[in-house]
Amino acid sequence: MTDTERQDLGLFTDLYQLTMLDAYLREGMHDDAVFTLFVRRLPEERKFLLAAGLDPLLETIEGLSFSDEDLNYLKEQDFSQKLIDYLRNFKFTGQVRALPEGTVFFENEPIVEIKAPLPQAQLIETLVMNQLHLQTLLASKGARVARSAQGRRVLDFGARRVHGIDAGIKGSRALYLSGITATSNMLAGCTYDLPVAGTMAHSYIQAHDCEYDAFKNFTNAFPETVLLVDTIDTIKGVEKVIKLANELGDDFKVKGIRLDSGDLGDLAFKVRELLDEHNLNHLKIIASGGLDEHKIAQLIKDNAPIDGFGVGTGMGVSDDASALDMAYKLVEYAGKGRLKLSSGKPVLPGEKQVFREAKGSFSHDTIARVEEQLPGEPLLRKVMQNGKRLPSHQRNIEEIRQYAQQQLDKLPDSMSSISCTEASYPVEISDTLANYQKEITEHLKRGGG
Amino acid sequence: MTDTERQDLGLFTDLYQLTMLDAYLREGMHDDAVFTLFVRRLPEERKFLLAAGLDPLLETIEGLSFSDEDLNYLKEQDFSQKLIDYLRNFKFTGQVRALPEGTVFFENEPIVEIKAPLPQAQLIETLVMNQLHLQTLLASKGARVARSAQGRRVLDFGARRVHGIDAGIKGSRALYLSGITATSNMLAGCTYDLPVAGTMAHSYIQAHDCEYDAFKNFTNAFPETVLLVDTIDTIKGVEKVIKLANELGDDFKVKGIRLDSGDLGDLAFKVRELLDEHNLNHLKIIASGGLDEHKIAQLIKDNAPIDGFGVGTGMGVSDDASALDMAYKLVEYAGKGRLKLSSGKPVLPGEKQVFREAKGSFSHDTIARVEEQLPGEPLLRKVMQNGKRLPSHQRNIEEIRQYAQQQLDKLPDSMSSISCTEASYPVEISDTLANYQKEITEHLKRGGG
Repeated sequence: MTDTERQDLGLFTDLYQLTMLDAYLREGMHDDAVFTLFVRRLPEERKFLLAAGLDPLLETIEGLSFSDEDLNYLKEQDFSQKLIDYLRNFKFTGQVRALPEGTVFFENEPIVEIKAPLPQAQLIETLVMNQLHLQTLLASKGARVARSAQGRRVLDFGARRVHGIDAGIKGSRALYLSGITATSNMLAGCTYDLPVAGTMAHSYIQAHDCEYDAFKNFTNAFPETVLLVDTIDTIKGVEKVIKLANELGDDFKVKGIRLDSGDLGDLAFKVRELLDEHNLNHLKIIASGGLDEHKIAQLIKDNAPIDGFGVGTGMGVSDDASALDMAYKLVEYAGKGRLKLSSGKPVLPGEKQVFREAKGSFSHDTIARVEEQLPGEPLLRKVMQNGKRLPSHQRNIEEIRQYAQQQLDKLPDSMSSISCTEASYPVEISDTLANYQKEITEHLKRGGG
Repeated sequence: MTDTERQDLGLFTDLYQLTMLDAYLREGMHDDAVFTLFVRRLPEERKFLLAAGLDPLLETIEGLSFSDEDLNYLKEQDFSQKLIDYLRNFKFTGQVRALPEGTVFFENEPIVEIKAPLPQAQLIETLVMNQLHLQTLLASKGARVARSAQGRRVLDFGARRVHGIDAGIKGSRALYLSGITATSNMLAGCTYDLPVAGTMAHSYIQAHDCEYDAFKNFTNAFPETVLLVDTIDTIKGVEKVIKLANELGDDFKVKGIRLDSGDLGDLAFKVRELLDEHNLNHLKIIASGGLDEHKIAQLIKDNAPIDGFGVGTGMGVSDDASALDMAYKLVEYAGKGRLKLSSGKPVLPGEKQVFREAKGSFSHDTIARVEEQLPGEPLLRKVMQNGKRLPSHQRNIEEIRQYAQQQLDKLPDSMSSISCTEASYPVEISDTLANYQKEITEHLKRGGG
């Protein structure tokens, strides 16, 4: 059993969800509620986001439960027996409409709309946000890094510094669907059927008394490997690779070398020349060490002869934008549109749909009420009903990855560029939705709330 | 079973750990290795770090194992039967020396030194780094936030935007031990026996047709609650709290109100005045919404009458320093000191000790070879032997938290300030260690490597 398949995550919730739930039960508030998940403002460094994490989340929600240990803990916390009985039999029975994973989206657009009895939809808030936030954050970063490499391989080496086990596993999935080539994380590879990749570490070289012996022994075990050459001196390391090629002759099957320190661009030129001089033109050069989309773009702009990139920390923690201003807000209860007026935090009431128009590339989106029919493609699809995922909307990771690439290819150039510009994608609100929002706002201001 | 108690995390490792392990097995390289975990450079925004995560990590390592599913997966990946048999019977048998959780530390200082047969110590690298990186990162951030609040309560509201489930659970533990008052995350509270806290959300108010009824009903269920007043209009919300107090008289047990939007300082003054005018002086004011240590420090400097702070995203993702330059490096194998010369990434060879001298507050540290006896307190302690935690070094979370406070209290003022200064804490390297490093470096440069 991996993290992902665990379903006893009912207790991964904030205390206030449970106190509110307890109050809802006492008040008999079981009518259907609609909650919308969206990102209020994009980080400065992002001009689009890439939806990710839906299917693993829905799998968890399908079987969401509380263990006896959880329930005993809640009893100790003085929760009512009524609440504990409710949680003992908890089963999510609601409907979910969502952007398919791999869909590009923008500010204020619904990513997910959950319609379920109020206590259920309230309880899962923390889990829904935590999971979709993480994966959308990393897919959005990964899409930038993959694009910067212009078709070259990008390997996700982040497992050691991403924030915890779950981020390591689900984050690698998000990065892969965004266009990253493979992950070094074996548990992620196993859990989500992702391609895995890796070379060797300095410690292997260090543990041998002689770098040349280390290369030779490792090549003996894994003939088609990539050798790490910077443990002592990069150029001397490459010379040892050449010596090994000469010694092994036709038995030399090594595929490449990896640079992991120093001026990667400068070293790549020198190493390429050295390898080519010795008829090792087929050896690839992989670069790693503190890389991100900007450094990769610069290396490629400088024509550095690098065939692939290993990218770790910066991508795995989304270092230039380590969180999204994501919110999960009540927009309807018992058939009535709901919002709040808290300053600077507007909410669009009721169930919604997003219509996207394109002329070759995407041109603009309109957020509308769900029953409206507007020009363009409706983006939100029903993916769960009565608490069960709809098989018609389940896709494997390769299908999601292809869909994401199609989406990214349709971004206007000004949106897909990794450099910072003032451009922002036009997202409009339909007149019908704007009027509905105004109507409820006035009602609240008149004291109806 | 919670995340933390899972021990089948053997596969949470990078592909290259397994290829190196496979090669070590073929070569019969089973001698003891020593790996040192340390942070090369502190982020610009940090002048100290706070060690965290050791005990949960050691608990995982004690029982680290591979499931049949893991082993089948590795078979499909063409790993040798020898490797798979080795992993089937894997048991960590090594020794761990470490800074106790809650110890303050600085650049290049060993946090953990692991001594074990090379294949074992290599295999666990990814897990060790992932876990200690996450928790040290968040404890170091939490210590700043807690300090900025100058004794006022700080509630960790981050569960929804921290990076995944594991970060939610272990991160809340790290924040608590660093000085944060309580967490909203129930699974973290249950797993690590942390105090939990929470109030109510906007959705509860929104789901009612009338804010006053919402306050009244919630108070009925939870008399000693904190009411959220900014859903429609903060001042009007507070007026409704006052109305409720008048209506309930002696039955009014509400403990406070929460502000979650707008100019928190300005609103706190107005709300305090309004409450006091109505003899509600005992009601506390809690503020939340985009807070971090700098905003809290400013509110306190402005004398804003705020009694407690809810802090979420910024703290939970350590937004101003979302990763540490942490490394796990081979420093000894088969009794010989090891290092690498990769540019800009120096390593201190051999087993080490850190001696810390204090004159009231900490004055300076010296990193030395393990057998040296220098003035000051030796910081690294043996915490695991033969793969088992030493009971003498296990402490409960309250003891760790108290120790962390003692450590933080001994920081020189220039180090504990949250504002940016040029000051850095003096960390020296003993002559003996410097000579040892020089000796091995020269050996490697002469081609010995």
